[in-house]
Amino acid sequence: MKFTLKAKDPNSKARLGEIETAHGNIQTPVFMPVGTAGSVKAVHQSELLNDVKAQIILGNTYHLYLRPGLDIIQKAGGLHKFNSWDKPLLTDSGGFQVYSLTEVRKIKEEGVTFQSHIDGSRHLFTPERVMDIQRIIGADIIMAFDECTPYPCDYSYARKSMDMTHRWLKRCCERFDETEPLYGYSQSLFPIVQGSVYKDLRERSAEKIASYNREGNAIGGLSVGEPAEEMYAMTEIVCNILPESKPRYLMGVGTPVNLLENIALGIDMFDCVMPTRNARNGMLFTKEGIINIKNKKWEDDFSPIDESSDLFSDRLYSKAYLRHLIRSKEILGAQIASLHNLHFYLWLMEEARNHIADGTFYNWKNKMTKVLDQKI
Amino acid sequence: MKFTLKAKDPNSKARLGEIETAHGNIQTPVFMPVGTAGSVKAVHQSELLNDVKAQIILGNTYHLYLRPGLDIIQKAGGLHKFNSWDKPLLTDSGGFQVYSLTEVRKIKEEGVTFQSHIDGSRHLFTPERVMDIQRIIGADIIMAFDECTPYPCDYSYARKSMDMTHRWLKRCCERFDETEPLYGYSQSLFPIVQGSVYKDLRERSAEKIASYNREGNAIGGLSVGEPAEEMYAMTEIVCNILPESKPRYLMGVGTPVNLLENIALGIDMFDCVMPTRNARNGMLFTKEGIINIKNKKWEDDFSPIDESSDLFSDRLYSKAYLRHLIRSKEILGAQIASLHNLHFYLWLMEEARNHIADGTFYNWKNKMTKVLDQKI
Repeated sequence: MKFTLKAKDPNSKARLGEIETAHGNIQTPVFMPVGTAGSVKAVHQSELLNDVKAQIILGNTYHLYLRPGLDIIQKAGGLHKFNSWDKPLLTDSGGFQVYSLTEVRKIKEEGVTFQSHIDGSRHLFTPERVMDIQRIIGADIIMAFDECTPYPCDYSYARKSMDMTHRWLKRCCERFDETEPLYGYSQSLFPIVQGSVYKDLRERSAEKIASYNREGNAIGGLSVGEPAEEMYAMTEIVCNILPESKPRYLMGVGTPVNLLENIALGIDMFDCVMPTRNARNGMLFTKEGIINIKNKKWEDDFSPIDESSDLFSDRLYSKAYLRHLIRSKEILGAQIASLHNLHFYLWLMEEARNHIADGTFYNWKNKMTKVLDQKI
Repeated sequence: MKFTLKAKDPNSKARLGEIETAHGNIQTPVFMPVGTAGSVKAVHQSELLNDVKAQIILGNTYHLYLRPGLDIIQKAGGLHKFNSWDKPLLTDSGGFQVYSLTEVRKIKEEGVTFQSHIDGSRHLFTPERVMDIQRIIGADIIMAFDECTPYPCDYSYARKSMDMTHRWLKRCCERFDETEPLYGYSQSLFPIVQGSVYKDLRERSAEKIASYNREGNAIGGLSVGEPAEEMYAMTEIVCNILPESKPRYLMGVGTPVNLLENIALGIDMFDCVMPTRNARNGMLFTKEGIINIKNKKWEDDFSPIDESSDLFSDRLYSKAYLRHLIRSKEILGAQIASLHNLHFYLWLMEEARNHIADGTFYNWKNKMTKVLDQKI
């Protein structure tokens, strides 16, 4: 993997870059659609490629490990082959899902034991095991195994958890460096900064993570319920420490405004289920603000979902029709709204890149963030 | 509407025809995908047009009447405008759903009172009201209001119900003929033959229906649980009576074998939820037989769903991946399987038309029906 910094915004910390992977290049800042179980919900891979213009998608290690299971993914030749996505892939470490989806779990120094949310079966994730699993899944970028602390989280727990995440990182790096990729292309391991919303912990963690000098760095444990201002404060502190020459990935973020504000602080990569999950509930992100398509005001609005869009479904279907589909729980409603939101997120990132290239990002960002959060 | 008989198979009653409507021409025999609430579940209109190559789709009057409601559909300018399907549309009369979906209903000479399955609200469908509703929905082909008897059904009930369906037909025709289409193009009303599985009733009903000399005729009350042989026997009796110069529509049928056998008896039009409903449960119809993709045998079959297909998704995704998606209840699984089954049904109809044109339908049909029902 290679990261090239191509431009910097004169009035913010925003950066334009390019990540080269074995499965293609990624222009940053980038938003990565989430394909939890190897599929971005309600969207065809061909639509991701041609309509959404996704450059990289995510898979979730926890889900893929449980189903279809490592045996099937390995026999397929890795996730790219299994789900027919021949572009870059990133997998998380499974940590976040272990904490958020499982009812029974126990965190120890060795790792985490948990029960599957599917069948209750018991499993153990250790840093070493999670590296082996992500070797088998075969994503281009893989993540270190960490503990993602909740919000709020008391200082003492946040510090202890961060220290364990750092010890786990050492084990992750050792295992990663002593193993080989399985499918003939290289993988890159990104460590994760933790430390909850505590400035000194975030600083310590960012320094520790930077010291490993991996090919990219991530920030975890944000967008877990804290106020946006706290998130931005942590991002700013961490970005000032993480090396400029490596891509910075802010995990699990966020709204369109969150994306722009964090780009301004130096973030290059984002992922979030929001555009697809909220789509299925009828929330549409647009240039003019946020639409709840279930509202009665759209009942007889027969104008296209977005007539200025270059997405076929934004121009083909009306707001009134989409409202009817979402209210009737028709699958096509989820398809149309998910396509719309992902296309919008990717469009917003492309606009951000263009404005960074032009040196006009900061003013554009300040104008957009006033609008994007409005309910219309 | 105009129907042209273009060829007849020398060894069966199969016919090749063309129906001209205000929204385009339909080559028959034709299968019509079902878009219950104005959407064929899990399939984009653009996919229906370009990938499935659907010539006409169905809407269900009962569902559309309840949601989004007539007011919205009329404001949109009819269903074609509302759901952005600019090709031919057919609506059923709502009768079948009133009997199958509502818990509380009362059938009287005037019509049927029923409670909505959505919110329990009370409604009355009369033959006149159902004509008015279908004028508002604006499909190219609309159906008479009938009672669809269940199977089994005793002779006395079947006869009384049939007689009422005939009296309702008279009222439907009168209302239809004294009203005008609302959107500037003509609509055609098809009456429906009933009579359960009783030969003499089916004969009487077919004669009555034929005497109305409408632009097409339909057969209802079949594929409701009776053995296939009884269905074919009734189709044969009715097709011998219905005029050759009008299209014949067998409602709610069926499996691929059912389609071919009924084409051989003189049927021109079919609709059924089977290809989409069964797709969502993992049943795939193929040239070689029926696949239950949830079976363990497909777990590590990484070959394309159908490599001989010209459908993008049949070639892009593997059987193992589709199995994983269906088992994981991923929406993409429903999308892929629904596209596959509809594409297969429409391909089968195209093959049937080609074989009728070549005069080779009968032998081809006998060969295909041996294979299509096999479980593989």
